[in-house]
Amino acid sequence: MAVASMEQYRIGIYAPSVMKNTNSKKRMLLVSYMGKLNAQVEEDPKKLKLYSYWRSSCSTRVRIALNLKGLSFDYVAVNMAKGEHSTAEYLKLNPLGYVPVLVDGDTVVFDSFAILMYLDDKYPQHPLLPHDLQKKAINYQVANIVSSRIQPLQNQPMVNFVEGKVGLDEKLAWAQYHIGKGFAGQVHTLLLNQLIIVFAFSIIKLNSVNIRYKSI
Amino acid sequence: MAVASMEQYRIGIYAPSVMKNTNSKKRMLLVSYMGKLNAQVEEDPKKLKLYSYWRSSCSTRVRIALNLKGLSFDYVAVNMAKGEHSTAEYLKLNPLGYVPVLVDGDTVVFDSFAILMYLDDKYPQHPLLPHDLQKKAINYQVANIVSSRIQPLQNQPMVNFVEGKVGLDEKLAWAQYHIGKGFAGQVHTLLLNQLIIVFAFSIIKLNSVNIRYKSI
Repeated sequence: MAVASMEQYRIGIYAPSVMKNTNSKKRMLLVSYMGKLNAQVEEDPKKLKLYSYWRSSCSTRVRIALNLKGLSFDYVAVNMAKGEHSTAEYLKLNPLGYVPVLVDGDTVVFDSFAILMYLDDKYPQHPLLPHDLQKKAINYQVANIVSSRIQPLQNQPMVNFVEGKVGLDEKLAWAQYHIGKGFAGQVHTLLLNQLIIVFAFSIIKLNSVNIRYKSI
Repeated sequence: MAVASMEQYRIGIYAPSVMKNTNSKKRMLLVSYMGKLNAQVEEDPKKLKLYSYWRSSCSTRVRIALNLKGLSFDYVAVNMAKGEHSTAEYLKLNPLGYVPVLVDGDTVVFDSFAILMYLDDKYPQHPLLPHDLQKKAINYQVANIVSSRIQPLQNQPMVNFVEGKVGLDEKLAWAQYHIGKGFAGQVHTLLLNQLIIVFAFSIIKLNSVNIRYKSI
């Protein structure tokens, strides 16, 4: 059971906050209950399927969203370190060769932002976005700043390119500049009272990257 | 009138398709009508305001969306070539210093994706997105591939960096690789029957960039 719970925790069946605020006995009951729940839906052909990699923050944000909404899903591990995202079979699913990919019946969606929006449309319980349109717009804005203006400019392929072609010092400067710029004017603090937790996670992750690349 | 119509056409008060499919006389009437309409709303403090730059494709997609929805707006030109996006005054509006920015009463939204989503929420007439959730998801997906996986990796600052630090040949290879990868598996053709015209525009624009950087 302990192994099962660790495994299920690792693959994100439970949101970390739930685990943190639950005592050991309750956690075991929760794990047992979730195990049964998973077993019950195991044979449902309509069950959601998530192709994911544990080191991918884009995948993590989708797992958090699925858990916030209480949606059960099959987890399919794609080990990018072993190149499993580049096999012919995987490229049939996502021709761009990355995780996450969500399969919901005959609907296949890749790109974490698109998956989150789809989940909020299709499964409106526990909405990820606030109803107030102004707050909603701020959420879109911060989410897109993270996904379009920070992540692609500081991810592994990008910094590997800069390190390989230009140099280690330039790599640090490059990552610091783009992460710092994305956080300019404390844009992300707009979210303090109106949180998309899934993108908040990205901000936390990027802060840790920021520390890794020396503080700005 | 001719000057006014050209000016209004230039700043995107009319969608190009409307102008193309309208004969000269009708066009003049349309221009005249729109001129009166603009005059009527001139003093409305709630009128939308768009900070934009004519060379910015992100700004253009917002102008197209505003026109598709039939929304009147004040156009505020931000000449990025003259550094007007970096003034202290502009940075108060958008601390990240880019266009477009939409002001709608006390709501300020920057980032073109966020603006489009906000406009579709607030002004549901002539929706930008289809109602069918599967088609909607494909729209989110293609839009986000353009905005997160192609645009930031082939825009002017990025290719300038590669050219300056690595070399001209690498710049071409870099831009070709990322634009080609974004188009891998003909992902964008999924949109053929279910179009977000605003992001379709980006695809057209990127195709022209692709040609500029030699065909892949």
